[in-house]
Amino acid sequence: MRITSRSNQRIKEIRKLQSAKERRSSGQCLITGPHLVVEALQTKTPIQQLILAPELMAQLPQPVQELLAEAAKGISTLYTTPAVFETLGSRRDMFFGTAAVIEQQWTPLEQLQVHRGDIWVACDSLQYPANAGTILRTMDGAGAAGIMFTGDSTDPYDPAAIRASQGALFSKQHSRIDSKSLGTWIRRHDVHVVGTSPSAAGSYREAAYPRPCLLYMGNEQRGLGPEEMALCHELVRIPMAGRCDSLNVAVAAGLMLYEAFHHNA
Amino acid sequence: MRITSRSNQRIKEIRKLQSAKERRSSGQCLITGPHLVVEALQTKTPIQQLILAPELMAQLPQPVQELLAEAAKGISTLYTTPAVFETLGSRRDMFFGTAAVIEQQWTPLEQLQVHRGDIWVACDSLQYPANAGTILRTMDGAGAAGIMFTGDSTDPYDPAAIRASQGALFSKQHSRIDSKSLGTWIRRHDVHVVGTSPSAAGSYREAAYPRPCLLYMGNEQRGLGPEEMALCHELVRIPMAGRCDSLNVAVAAGLMLYEAFHHNA
Repeated sequence: MRITSRSNQRIKEIRKLQSAKERRSSGQCLITGPHLVVEALQTKTPIQQLILAPELMAQLPQPVQELLAEAAKGISTLYTTPAVFETLGSRRDMFFGTAAVIEQQWTPLEQLQVHRGDIWVACDSLQYPANAGTILRTMDGAGAAGIMFTGDSTDPYDPAAIRASQGALFSKQHSRIDSKSLGTWIRRHDVHVVGTSPSAAGSYREAAYPRPCLLYMGNEQRGLGPEEMALCHELVRIPMAGRCDSLNVAVAAGLMLYEAFHHNA
Repeated sequence: MRITSRSNQRIKEIRKLQSAKERRSSGQCLITGPHLVVEALQTKTPIQQLILAPELMAQLPQPVQELLAEAAKGISTLYTTPAVFETLGSRRDMFFGTAAVIEQQWTPLEQLQVHRGDIWVACDSLQYPANAGTILRTMDGAGAAGIMFTGDSTDPYDPAAIRASQGALFSKQHSRIDSKSLGTWIRRHDVHVVGTSPSAAGSYREAAYPRPCLLYMGNEQRGLGPEEMALCHELVRIPMAGRCDSLNVAVAAGLMLYEAFHHNA
């Protein structure tokens, strides 16, 4: 039994997950492409439904096909025609007929697991989903524990964020909180907070990053506001040798994350 | 005299610059938003024409309005209605009624200015314009001299690239070349070439980056190919502590650029 109509009720529901509002109200998210679906399986992310287009999957390497077939035995699976499948997302993720609806895995503040050697990231009012995803991918590389979103931040479950994260979102703790609660969390776990500011005296290369540490990154246009800066134990700047007054926030987070990483716990 | 019709011949020509093919054949490029236009003016980038929508410009800070009015005296300027102006680009760059057609500033290989203390970047078959732009912005921050594109690389004059570069493209030398010519250039200027590879023995933190140095970054999916690796004097890896096998190329370039920057000339 395969779905052959683009206006099938369930297909319409899945397509709606492209909207941030629908993702919020359902607590679900659509992920597309074999890489992300395999990552979700391997990280034991709760999958609500697999969506597969067998004709398109024929191009996948044999081991991936087998892994997906095995997974489909234990998970509700929707089979569609290529034409129906291609209505579910942007073209570049659709080639291999593999998608899934997953449950979002937000962790409430009080349940976040904090360890002595941790590196954490907080982003205030992050605007672009691709930046959120790229920061998560770099967090994975630098072995960071999790990310907190304060203010009016973009949705890391946005398709562009998930794609840029390469699935790192599935294995990194994430939480949405206000900066007051972040202050309480910082004190409770004795976390050292380092923020970036173009007017800071010291360079990010000279800071010590004692663990657990939290790297606080500001909004793309405004940087960190006064309320967020007040939560920082230390402000550092990234040297800017040219005409631009700041780096892309995901590049800045990358420099901070790897700097903290190299100051080993 | 203002253009009031969206199907005005000149407006149609300008809109065509959204296509890579048209940018290549014309050697021109449309930049949108007051920040980029002011950067183009201040870096003395040749402007072929200013396109202004006075009603929208009313929201601009007074000094910017004055700077643009002064510039318009010496440059061919097209005035349009807001409705016509908004057909020229993506919504977020259109608020302030300020755009310009500029001449692309590629430098032929033999005319590139190379100095002893230089940091250069080369990108092979870079796929996404936003990555090209973000790398240029970071090059500006780290004081790099210029960038070379080898293979089938994206167009740094793509609107997404220009936006991500924050105008750094206007002040950084850039050249398109094949890897054979790159080899000749490297030998002629005695440039030390550092490439990234996940299988390299040494970490990017342990390399020395003697100047002039060239950081060679690979394609988003495949990394550097054998032909490009053969041009490198040294291969380094970026430690990956988690599940992902690589970083976003612009983040990786950021780590390499600032590492080289901190090994002062």
